[in-house]
Amino acid sequence: MTDLFPHAQALTADMRSMVRAELTRVIDQSAAHDAETLREMLAYQMGWEGEGSSARAEGKKIRPLLVTLTADASEGSWRQSVPAAAAVELVHNFSLIHDDIEDQSETRRGRPTVWKKWGVAPAVNAGDAMFSLASLALLGLREHHSADTVLEASQRFHQTCLRLTQGQHLDLAFESLAKTPLESYWQMVGGKTAALLSCSTELGALCAGAGPDRKTAYQQFGHYLGLAYQAQDDILGIWGEQEKLGKSTAGDLVSGKLTLPVIFGLTQDQEFRSRWRSGQIEAGDVPDLARRLEDIGSRAYAQSVSDRLTDLALTRLESAQPSGDSGEALHALARTLLNRQV
Amino acid sequence: MTDLFPHAQALTADMRSMVRAELTRVIDQSAAHDAETLREMLAYQMGWEGEGSSARAEGKKIRPLLVTLTADASEGSWRQSVPAAAAVELVHNFSLIHDDIEDQSETRRGRPTVWKKWGVAPAVNAGDAMFSLASLALLGLREHHSADTVLEASQRFHQTCLRLTQGQHLDLAFESLAKTPLESYWQMVGGKTAALLSCSTELGALCAGAGPDRKTAYQQFGHYLGLAYQAQDDILGIWGEQEKLGKSTAGDLVSGKLTLPVIFGLTQDQEFRSRWRSGQIEAGDVPDLARRLEDIGSRAYAQSVSDRLTDLALTRLESAQPSGDSGEALHALARTLLNRQV
Repeated sequence: MTDLFPHAQALTADMRSMVRAELTRVIDQSAAHDAETLREMLAYQMGWEGEGSSARAEGKKIRPLLVTLTADASEGSWRQSVPAAAAVELVHNFSLIHDDIEDQSETRRGRPTVWKKWGVAPAVNAGDAMFSLASLALLGLREHHSADTVLEASQRFHQTCLRLTQGQHLDLAFESLAKTPLESYWQMVGGKTAALLSCSTELGALCAGAGPDRKTAYQQFGHYLGLAYQAQDDILGIWGEQEKLGKSTAGDLVSGKLTLPVIFGLTQDQEFRSRWRSGQIEAGDVPDLARRLEDIGSRAYAQSVSDRLTDLALTRLESAQPSGDSGEALHALARTLLNRQV
Repeated sequence: MTDLFPHAQALTADMRSMVRAELTRVIDQSAAHDAETLREMLAYQMGWEGEGSSARAEGKKIRPLLVTLTADASEGSWRQSVPAAAAVELVHNFSLIHDDIEDQSETRRGRPTVWKKWGVAPAVNAGDAMFSLASLALLGLREHHSADTVLEASQRFHQTCLRLTQGQHLDLAFESLAKTPLESYWQMVGGKTAALLSCSTELGALCAGAGPDRKTAYQQFGHYLGLAYQAQDDILGIWGEQEKLGKSTAGDLVSGKLTLPVIFGLTQDQEFRSRWRSGQIEAGDVPDLARRLEDIGSRAYAQSVSDRLTDLALTRLESAQPSGDSGEALHALARTLLNRQV
C-alpha cells in the first residue's frame, strides 16, 4: 500500500505504526484474569501472531488509515485520532471473526479462520471480546478531546455497529426478503460495507474539529466509497479472474450470492432467471452464465453504477476540501480501491 | 418477585414498567433498514413476543432492578438511571444468546433458544445487534447527566463486557487451565456472574451522584452478591433437586461442570478424583457421587464459602447506607437470591 502515497509515505508509515502500538496496548488488556489464550486468539486474528502471521495476514488496514488521513486532511492532529483508528480496526476484525463463523469460511487472508483453529464456541466469545475492546479503545479519545466530542464519537460508533449487524442480517436472510432485491441490496451494502467506512472518515473529521458541512462531506465520501467498492467487488467476483487468468473461477455465481450483476439478470432476463432458480450453479455452468449476463448488459450496468458512485465519492471528497499530503493520499486511496483491475 | 418488596411494591412495579418502556424503545431501533426480523429475534429473546412469551420467558430482571434500586437508595432520581438499567439488561440478554450457542443449549426459560429457532448464524448476529443496542442505550444517560458522568459509566460498562468475555473464555477452557482450579474458578465466576451485578449497583450509585466511598461499597455489594449467588447455585446444582424432589437430578455432575463442591472433592479426596477422571458420569452414578461429596465435607465447605460471601455482601450493603424503601428492597433482594431453598 505504501507505493500508493508518493508524497505521504513517511506520514502513512508513521500513522500505521502509531495505530499498531495503540492496538497492541488495547488487545493486551484481554489477557488479564487468566485469559492469556483469549489474547492469543485476538492477536492471531490481527495477523500478528501464530502460524502464518504476516503483512498479508494483517489485512489492508484501510479503515484506520481513513481515520488518520481524514483527521490530517481536515487540519487536525491525526495523532489525536489514533484511538478512533484503533476502534474501527477492532470492530472490523470483530465482524470478520463472526462473519467467518456465520458463513462457515475456513480461511481468511490465507490462514485458517479463528473458529476453524479454536472451535466455534471460543471464537464467538473472542469476537465479543474484540467488540468490547473496540468500545474501550474509542474511549481513549478522552485524553485529547472534550467529553462531548467523545460522546458524539461513541454515539456514531455504536450506531455504526448496529448498522453492521442489520446489513449482515439482510445478507443472511437475503433470499427470503419480501422487498425488491435491489432495494434490499443497497440496504445490505449500506450496512455491511459502507457503514464502517463512512464512520471512519466521519470520526477522523470529528477528531480534527471539522465543521458540520465538512464532517458531512467526509462522511458521505466514506459512504459512497463503500457502495462503489462493493459494486466493483461484485463485478470482480464474476469477471475478475476470467480476464486475469484466462478462465472464470466466478466464485460468486457458484455460491449463489445475490450481487448487483445477478440482480440485474434476475429482473431483466427470463432465461437467466429460470437458470438461476433451477438449482445449484456448478463451476462448469459459470462461463455460460457469465457470458449470458454480459450479453444482456449486466456487466455494463454494474460498471455504470460503480462509476456513478465513484464520481459521487470523489465529488464529496472534493467538497470536503482535503488539504496537504493527506488530502492527496485520500484521493490516491479512493482511486486505488475503486479502479482495481477488472 | 413483587411479593419480595412489601414496602416497595408500587415503586418496583414503576421501575419495571419504565425500564420496559425504555427497552422497547431501544430494541425497536433494530428494525430499521429492512431488518424487522432482527427486531423479532431480539423481542423473542426478551420474552415479549413469539411462541411461549410470558413473564417466565422474560427472566427475573434482577440487574435492571439493582440499578434503579441502588440509584433510589443513594438518594438520587432512579428515573434518571433507567438508560443504565436498560443497558445492563440488554448486555445480560446478549450474553445469554451467545452463551446458549457456545453451550449448545436448546432451551432457555422454558422456550427454544434463539439459535435453535433461527439457526446459529442469524443468532450470532442477533447477539451482536443486542450488544450494540446495549451500548447505545447507555448513551441515553446524557439526557440527565453530565458528559463526564456518561463517559465514566461507559468506561465501567465496556470494561465489564470485556470481563464477561474473559469469564466465559475461562469457562470454555476450564478443563485445560494451567493454574489451580480454585484460583481459576474465582476468576471465572468473577467474570461470568459477579461482573455485571457489580456493574449494575455501581452504575446505579454513579447515576445518583454518590460519593466515591458509597459507590465502591455498592460496587462491592454487587460483586460479593454475584460470588455468593454462584456458590449457592453450585450447591443447588448438585443437591437442590435431591431434597425438593426426593431424588437427585444433579445436572451439574453429569455435565462435568467444575463447580465449587466438585473442585473441593478433586483436591481433597483421592476416590472422588479417580472416579471423576475415569470418564463420563452417568445419571445413575450421581446419587453415590453426591453422597461421597457430602461425606467428605464438600457441601459444608461450599455452604461455608457461600455464607461468608453473603456476609461480605450484606456488610458492604450496610456500609453503603442504603436509604428508604429501596434500601429495604435491596436487602430483601439479596436475602432472597442468597437464601434459596437448598
